[in-house]
Amino acid sequence: MKTLRLGICGTGNVGKALLVSLRDSKELFEIQGNVNLEISMVGVRKGKSSLPFQELRVSEDIMQVALDDAVDVVVELIGGTETAYELIQKAIENGKDVVTANKAMISKYGNELFQKAKDKGVQVGFEASVAGGTPVIKALREGLVANKILWFAGILNGTSNYILSYMSSSEVTFEEALKSAQSLGLAEADPTLDIDGTDAAQKASILASLAFHVPFNFASVNYEGIQNVALKDLRCAQELGYSIKHIALGKIIDEKVSINAHPMLVSNESILSKVGQEMNALEVYAEDVGSTVYYGPGAGPTPTATAVIADLVDIAKGALFNVPEVNNKNSLLTKPTESTARYFRMEVSNEPGVIAKISAIFARKQISIDTLIQHDSKSEIIINNGLVSVVIITGSMDDVSSVEISSALDKMEEVHHNVKNFRILSLL
Amino acid sequence: MKTLRLGICGTGNVGKALLVSLRDSKELFEIQGNVNLEISMVGVRKGKSSLPFQELRVSEDIMQVALDDAVDVVVELIGGTETAYELIQKAIENGKDVVTANKAMISKYGNELFQKAKDKGVQVGFEASVAGGTPVIKALREGLVANKILWFAGILNGTSNYILSYMSSSEVTFEEALKSAQSLGLAEADPTLDIDGTDAAQKASILASLAFHVPFNFASVNYEGIQNVALKDLRCAQELGYSIKHIALGKIIDEKVSINAHPMLVSNESILSKVGQEMNALEVYAEDVGSTVYYGPGAGPTPTATAVIADLVDIAKGALFNVPEVNNKNSLLTKPTESTARYFRMEVSNEPGVIAKISAIFARKQISIDTLIQHDSKSEIIINNGLVSVVIITGSMDDVSSVEISSALDKMEEVHHNVKNFRILSLL
Repeated sequence: MKTLRLGICGTGNVGKALLVSLRDSKELFEIQGNVNLEISMVGVRKGKSSLPFQELRVSEDIMQVALDDAVDVVVELIGGTETAYELIQKAIENGKDVVTANKAMISKYGNELFQKAKDKGVQVGFEASVAGGTPVIKALREGLVANKILWFAGILNGTSNYILSYMSSSEVTFEEALKSAQSLGLAEADPTLDIDGTDAAQKASILASLAFHVPFNFASVNYEGIQNVALKDLRCAQELGYSIKHIALGKIIDEKVSINAHPMLVSNESILSKVGQEMNALEVYAEDVGSTVYYGPGAGPTPTATAVIADLVDIAKGALFNVPEVNNKNSLLTKPTESTARYFRMEVSNEPGVIAKISAIFARKQISIDTLIQHDSKSEIIINNGLVSVVIITGSMDDVSSVEISSALDKMEEVHHNVKNFRILSLL
Repeated sequence: MKTLRLGICGTGNVGKALLVSLRDSKELFEIQGNVNLEISMVGVRKGKSSLPFQELRVSEDIMQVALDDAVDVVVELIGGTETAYELIQKAIENGKDVVTANKAMISKYGNELFQKAKDKGVQVGFEASVAGGTPVIKALREGLVANKILWFAGILNGTSNYILSYMSSSEVTFEEALKSAQSLGLAEADPTLDIDGTDAAQKASILASLAFHVPFNFASVNYEGIQNVALKDLRCAQELGYSIKHIALGKIIDEKVSINAHPMLVSNESILSKVGQEMNALEVYAEDVGSTVYYGPGAGPTPTATAVIADLVDIAKGALFNVPEVNNKNSLLTKPTESTARYFRMEVSNEPGVIAKISAIFARKQISIDTLIQHDSKSEIIINNGLVSVVIITGSMDDVSSVEISSALDKMEEVHHNVKNFRILSLL
């Protein structure tokens, strides 16, 4: 049985869960993974007292962990980008394998990092960086290695999914759902990166590199968060047979790769629409296989820690990860060119001629209206200071048309509040 | 880049798809898998003319493939158990790695086979044996390697799932749905092994070995097929908020492992209930992670061929598969001891006192009745020669009580046709 001597940096929730797991489940990893995982050193800036148990060799200078002779693998769980990248560079330069859960760092420095690892002949595992305990990285780069992937669509931010699911099931506002997420530890005190779509966009950028063999380039991701989804939108969508989910979408068409992450209407027929609570799911569509879907917990200390350990077992087995290889035929689109059907909702004064005016705005842009619902006063959905809700499902349009139409609608004096405008997920 | 020289035995649908894929997607496997996959030899009893293309080295004696010096890996796609096992033994003895899609052979000879492979230091890949193009074997033995798995529940037979889904969506009988499956190539001319549960039971036995570290032992699987599921059962289940799915269920409780495969009522709240058509899905529940679900095509020539290639890429990388290791603490239950809630449906003459008699039968066995529905004549579900349908959902009972109650009900003179009796899936 092989022994791996670990240098663990970062002892937040995931780091603590990892330390406890390595102590308590040693036998399980020996039986199932045929590996002896030894905690050789812990890098912890706050010092020993912050650790869940004490009989550990500790350095308050985390960079020492990357230099230590008794460390085979550096596990980077400190988060952030700059120091984490510096630490990993040092580890690689010293010939150490690396396991990291750091999506922000990989989406920013992935190209340099994997090149360095390749040059030095060391391994970098990052299963824990996307979808926590659900092995989607492994599925993409190993399970589906024989397949040409055409697109993926994922619910990759657990906090956003919890908020949207809870708004929908408990009929509460965005703010109430966010509070609930925070009280359950599913959202941080400052939830910005989850809610504004950044976290999902970083993950989408990593998945796109693996799926389509393009360089890591976070700047090419076109994204927006869930802040503008109101309870009323969830109700209107439901009435039309849709859920609203935050969807990270990667596609390759004619060797051009687009990466998007937006709140989208998802048909209730789709498996993704059934992904509730804080769960994650990734649907991958590949030539020859069609759709496969991977569903599970997207975050949480113990699921993430087990993903780290799965990478360590692979490293111990001598399994060489496929380094994300760039296929120069494929290029990344850096501007949104996607066309999708859209959902618009506006609150309008119930006056004669309003619908005609609204319709004319779409007609001028040559955009078809597939469905138009104006709620009459019998509906529970509306009645709001004499305003009625008008919901429109359009034919396909690009981002430019969408912005222009929203802006034209917003300028109508009969339209109150901001016009809501979301993409409709259409796959295949 | 490593070259693997393949000896491919068996040129049915999967073998043909594999040959075509190896010829047409060579560049893809080079870029994504960093491997040069060469067809060195093909074992085909019917001779060269049955192959999709001709410029191949062929042996009509498939055993020659296991002996050939220019073959690194034997790919076994001939099916059946005895000859396939003989072929694989020969290959292992000659130091060749093996990839197989043969669930029947593994569930029968797995113990000997993996021991031999271990002794000789060769690899045996079998991703294609369960769930075709969906990488569930990889998820179990690599992705979840750091987790203690407590149960799995899977829809593992695509033919059965198609039949049940199609009966339900198109309101047709079992026989009509079977015919539709056959016309689509989803069921064989003799569909026995799919429909009677054998295929799913073989797969469950493989998954249980990986999940719970018990020996392969097909005889320990308690199973039944979908032949007794009638359209009326699907409708009654739907009315109560359930789908009926054929579920392969493995559990470990107090180090005792049970493996079952039965048609079961699955709550419409469960992701498994959403798995339609001929798709497969596997839900795995593990300590620390909770549920993860893997969904995708469970069969078909090209999905299965891509699973074979994924194994070949792993072999080329030098990734040593975790050999299924037996944990002697865990033991396999060979007799059904599971208790579950049950669904009973009987067609009864609408006479006074019938419900009292039926209820008394359950009461005598101390089985609680949680729901009882007797359809009145307004319902579309019933009216059948003056008979009414009585549907009962019970509390938990074991197999023995279930058989005794069914038999007592069948003996009632007011009960016509056979009593239907299915398990209700209850997880957690």
